[in-house]
This record gives sequence, structure tokens and C-alpha cells, in this order.
Amino acid sequence: MRIMIAGGDGFCGWPTALYFSNRGHEVAILDNMIRRKWDEELGTQSLTPIFSLEERIGAWKETSGKDIRMYVGDLTEYDFVENAMREFQPEAFVHYAEQRSAPYSMIDRQHAVFTQVNNVVGTLNVLFAIKNIVPDCHLIKLGTMGEYGTPNIDIEEGYLKVSHKGREDVLPYPKQPFSFYHLSKVHDSHNIMFTCKAWGIRATDLNQGVVYGLWTDECKVDERLYNRVDYDGVFGTALNRFCIQAAVGHDLTVYGKGGQTRAFLDIRDTLQCVELAALNPADKGEFRVFNQFTEQFSVLELAERVSEVAKQMGMEAKIAHLQNPRVEKEEHYYKAIHTKLIDLGLKPHLLSDELISNMIETAIRYRDRVNVGVIAPSASWR
Amino acid sequence: MRIMIAGGDGFCGWPTALYFSNRGHEVAILDNMIRRKWDEELGTQSLTPIFSLEERIGAWKETSGKDIRMYVGDLTEYDFVENAMREFQPEAFVHYAEQRSAPYSMIDRQHAVFTQVNNVVGTLNVLFAIKNIVPDCHLIKLGTMGEYGTPNIDIEEGYLKVSHKGREDVLPYPKQPFSFYHLSKVHDSHNIMFTCKAWGIRATDLNQGVVYGLWTDECKVDERLYNRVDYDGVFGTALNRFCIQAAVGHDLTVYGKGGQTRAFLDIRDTLQCVELAALNPADKGEFRVFNQFTEQFSVLELAERVSEVAKQMGMEAKIAHLQNPRVEKEEHYYKAIHTKLIDLGLKPHLLSDELISNMIETAIRYRDRVNVGVIAPSASWR
Repeated sequence: MRIMIAGGDGFCGWPTALYFSNRGHEVAILDNMIRRKWDEELGTQSLTPIFSLEERIGAWKETSGKDIRMYVGDLTEYDFVENAMREFQPEAFVHYAEQRSAPYSMIDRQHAVFTQVNNVVGTLNVLFAIKNIVPDCHLIKLGTMGEYGTPNIDIEEGYLKVSHKGREDVLPYPKQPFSFYHLSKVHDSHNIMFTCKAWGIRATDLNQGVVYGLWTDECKVDERLYNRVDYDGVFGTALNRFCIQAAVGHDLTVYGKGGQTRAFLDIRDTLQCVELAALNPADKGEFRVFNQFTEQFSVLELAERVSEVAKQMGMEAKIAHLQNPRVEKEEHYYKAIHTKLIDLGLKPHLLSDELISNMIETAIRYRDRVNVGVIAPSASWR
Repeated sequence: MRIMIAGGDGFCGWPTALYFSNRGHEVAILDNMIRRKWDEELGTQSLTPIFSLEERIGAWKETSGKDIRMYVGDLTEYDFVENAMREFQPEAFVHYAEQRSAPYSMIDRQHAVFTQVNNVVGTLNVLFAIKNIVPDCHLIKLGTMGEYGTPNIDIEEGYLKVSHKGREDVLPYPKQPFSFYHLSKVHDSHNIMFTCKAWGIRATDLNQGVVYGLWTDECKVDERLYNRVDYDGVFGTALNRFCIQAAVGHDLTVYGKGGQTRAFLDIRDTLQCVELAALNPADKGEFRVFNQFTEQFSVLELAERVSEVAKQMGMEAKIAHLQNPRVEKEEHYYKAIHTKLIDLGLKPHLLSDELISNMIETAIRYRDRVNVGVIAPSASWR
């Protein structure tokens, strides 16, 4: 399969590119390298040292014998997107190329506007380019479980069957996103759904949970193939951030009570899920939504789990309840359905103490790269 | 009340400004005059001759003795918005300043991207400026009934009470918009709802139906105060367009079967509704949604009604079923609830033959200004 991976230099995109390449697919990466610039802006860097995309691709060729094509440019520039699609003729387009941090989108007005324009216009351009150049190409779009918010009923996969005043319909599941970032994904979902109906685009929206872990089989092979991982208050997410905090002797920063329950998955399952979507494409005109995660945890549960593993490793990791910088419920009902990917064959890697200790060990190895000044949350929702 | 009217040079905005000014409120208009440029782009013009905003405001001062302030600039430029709010200190901000044509948003990629960026960024800037400068200001935002699409259940006012697997919640009503324009309004609604929760913004989202008519008490007084009205395939809407087509001897252009049912209201009721919203503001942090219309009609029903009135006036107005340029259901269930504005005191002007004949007479008076070449639909959804 010819598969184009937008955002292929990032945390999920790079291991996805290697994973598909390793399985014999023709892979192209499309990226504007902006994730690396955000590190500079925020005074942080990946915990793990990462090489340039050129070096990464060269190392992959060297170690695997396989080619990955590279298109450097921005999805918000339409001609770039169209030219890349015309040249590569993708059968599947995996779209990770968005600003993906809620706190980043909440820094100030410029960051909010940037996030929404960047994400919405990038996705619009992808939709128009698919329509114009490769109308049968399957769009695999990364959404987020955060689109749903925390309703008091079960979260279904994209649609909700509603009975109302004696009539019935199946409607898009109502969205209550948490931040300007999460909102941008909701905007994308609506735009994509419309083009499926109007133009017959085939699309899968993967509403992904919080991804933890770092290592995949392909990334481990060579130092030059290492994946990035974030620990800072802006791009670092729960669990990964806790492991790294434990490693550098920082308190585990729980926002508020920590009763916030979210959906999580191992990065290896991200790759599996995207593969399952790609190998089982949506029908023409179908807007398919999968909830892409394997387990639910409250943030406090995760902190306690990391603290426990750290203790077994002879380290003390205290939990600090910070004043919550976000506007969110700290105690709430949360039950999200996630059977569609299981039905397609997903074999989950459930969270293990081994993975946590492995993450802590990685963090200890690279603790000198950690700038503790950027761990605290810097963006406030209020 | 100090009320700021963004888009105050447009079809709804200008009569709204006069209406509030006439009732003794302090009014400021904020506009970038872009609506007039779109006429140039499309080779059309208002059926009625309209004067420049400066002349309009001068004529209003002359005839009523009242001042209207004018801020010429673009909502997508934040400093402009913030400065205007700092100077005027609005208590209510009526936001009409969006690209409001579905066909315009469907012309091509550039128009789609323009519509979404213009509308979404403009509204984000208004939200940030309210937060930063006038946090108690009540945002009265014009949405559209088209946000809901045509679900097979009753359309409620913004929220839907859902029972699901033995649990209950009240959720944002699911949206199934028809075009990139309608999508932009859905994006706005989500953004505004979030800022109400996160920042305590007070907001009323007026999901307006299709507006017909043209004359309001204030606009009639002097030729220089005349309102604009559109007949072209891009900005002209059903009913108004039919009346003008009848006047110039053009077939009444119904798209497809014409069973598409939509919500409609008289422009005089637009003003009433906005006034009711302004005088009964949303609470702090409340995101309130009103369905702003008075009657439902199918497009074919309206064409038949106009045809009938034209016949009584001695004219023949044939109905032509054009191939539908849009992707939409031509037969469907449609029942939208609209009691909240009635409860606040709205006294509807229901559609009368008199209004239709009056519109046709106005169109006959200005028939020389009509360019029949721009009546046919030019943008296709496919």
C-alpha cells in the first residue's frame, strides 16, 4: 500500500512511518518540522536525543534497506499538498500533522488562533487535495477522545442513536471539547463528515486517547531512529510525564483532585490501530469513527501507579496536587465504548509495571537533558 | 444600552443599528465593508441602491438627530477589535460580521478556507476582546438554523436531553451542517460554548432562519437609509430571490424537487429578536441558544406562493426545477422548536401576500439594476 504520513517527524508519526515501511508498504512522510521549533519556543527538548528527519530516514535505509520518501512543507500551503499527492498517489493518508497540545492552544490568543487555523486549514487542504487528485484515497485522521468531553452518559464511537418525542435518528455524538486544541479537532470532524457526504470522501476519524510509552520495535534498533518523548508542562502528557518526573526527583504533578478520568493507550497500539484502519478502509462516502484507546484511568490512579513502581525501584516519587490550571470536572462519570478496533483485530498492550519501570529507566538515562523549569503547567484556562 | 453592531453595514446589521438607535440606545457599527466588495467580485449589486456607510450615518443624524459611531476595520485584526471595545465599552455586542452565504463558501477551496478562517478567527477575536476588555458584555451571535441540518427528530433549541443506557444528560444538540459556511457557524458555536464555561462569557447564539423582506420602519424614511437586498444565486435567498425573479420575468428557480423545508422569518422579526436577546441578557457563563424564526416552509411552497401573488398582480411567474447544485435531502422530516423568543415576547410578522406583493413592487421599481446573468446558481456542492 502507498501510505502518506503527515506529521511523520512527530511522536506518533515517526514510529508509524517505520512500522508501515517495515511491513513492506511504500511510505512517504510529509512534515514541516514545526514540532522541533515549538521545543525552541518553549525552552524544552525531547527527553531522548533525536536526529534530523534526513538522518533518521538515512539510518532507516541503512538498517532496513527500505526507502521512505520525504516531503518537507506545510499542509496550510495547498500547492504543496496537491503536488505531494500528485507525485506519490497515496492510497491512504494518515493525518497526524496538527498542533496537538491543549495547553499550547491555551497560552494566549495567538496560540489559540494559530492552533485552530493551522489544524482546520491543513485538514481542509488535505480534503480538497484528496478530492482533486486521489479521490479514492482513504483519509485516516487523528482526532481525540477529548472531543467528547465528559458527558454523563456512555461515550459511543462517533454516533449516538437518539429516541426523542416518539421519533428516532442516529446523530453525530455531541461534542464538549476542553480547549481550543480539542475544539480544532471537533471542527475537523465536522468538516470531514461533510465532505464524505458531499464528495464521497472515505474517512476514518480515530478519536485517540492519551498515548504513553515511547519505544516501538523499529525505533529501538538504532540510536538515530529513536522516537521523541515530551515531559514539559505543555506537550508532556500524563503517565509519560509522571515517569520522567519520578526519574528526576520531581513531584508527580496532578492537577486538582486527579479524579479526571481519561482514555489511554500504548504507542505500540497506536500503530496497530492505524494499520487496522488502513487495511480495512472506510467505504466511499463513509465517515467512520473509532475510539482509539485500550484502558481508562483517572489521573490520580496513574500517579499512584508510577509512585508505586518508583518505590519498588528505590526512588521516592511524591504526588503533588497542583491548583488545576484547566477548567474541567475533577470527579465525573466516564465510560467510553471502544469495540470497533477490537473487532478489527486489535490486541491491546495493557499498562504494565514493566512499561512504567522501563519508561523511568529511559528517563534516568537521559535525565541530564531534562529542564525542570518547564515541567510546571504554564498555560491557564482562565 | 451601549450596543456594538458588527457587520452593521449589511442586510441585517444596518436595520438593526437604526432600530436600536431609534429606541434611544447608544449604537456603534463595526464593519470592514467587505460585503460591498463581494458584489464587485460576483458582478452583482443590491437590488435597491444603497449609500456609503458614511452617508447612511450622516442621513440618520439628519433625519433622527441621533449619532451612530463607526469603526471601520476587520474582526480578524485583533488590535482593531480590542481598541474599538476599549473606546466604546459595549454592554452588548451583536455579531453579524461573517461571510454568510453557503454558495459563496462552496465556490472553490479558497472561498471555503476564507469563509472558515474569516468567521472562526473573527469570533475568536471577539471572545478574547470581551474577556480582556469588557468581561460583562453580552455576546449576541448570529448562528443559523442550517447548523442543525435535517435530523429525523425534532430540532430543539441548542440542547438535547438524552437518555442512554439508563443514564441521562443534557447535551449540545448534534449538528449536521450543509456547507463550509454552515460548518463555520458550528465551529463558532463550539468555540463560544467553551469560553462561556472556561471564562464566564455570557452569550446568546441566535440560530436564525432564512430572512425575507427588506423594509423596516427606520430604513424607509429616507432613500439614503435604504437597506440592501440580494437576488443573485450566491447571496440571494429563497423568497426574496423569488420575488425579484418574478419582477424581472425570470423563472422562479427551485433546486430539485423543492421539498427542502427550512425555517423563515421577516427581517422586522430579526430586529425584534435581537432586541429581546439584548434586553434579557444571558447569565454570566451561560451559553444560551434560541432558534430564531417564525414559520417553516418548503422551498416549493414559497415559490408557489410567490407565483400565485404574481398572477394576481397580472404577471406570469413559472417555476423551474433546476438540477440541485447542493447536496441535501429534497424530502425529509423537519420540525424545529422555537418557543424561547416567543416566551420573551416576540410578536411574529407571519408571511403575508401583502409582503410578497410589496417585495415584487420594490423589485419592479429597481428592475433596471438587476443583472439576470447572476441569478442562476454558480457554485456546485459536488
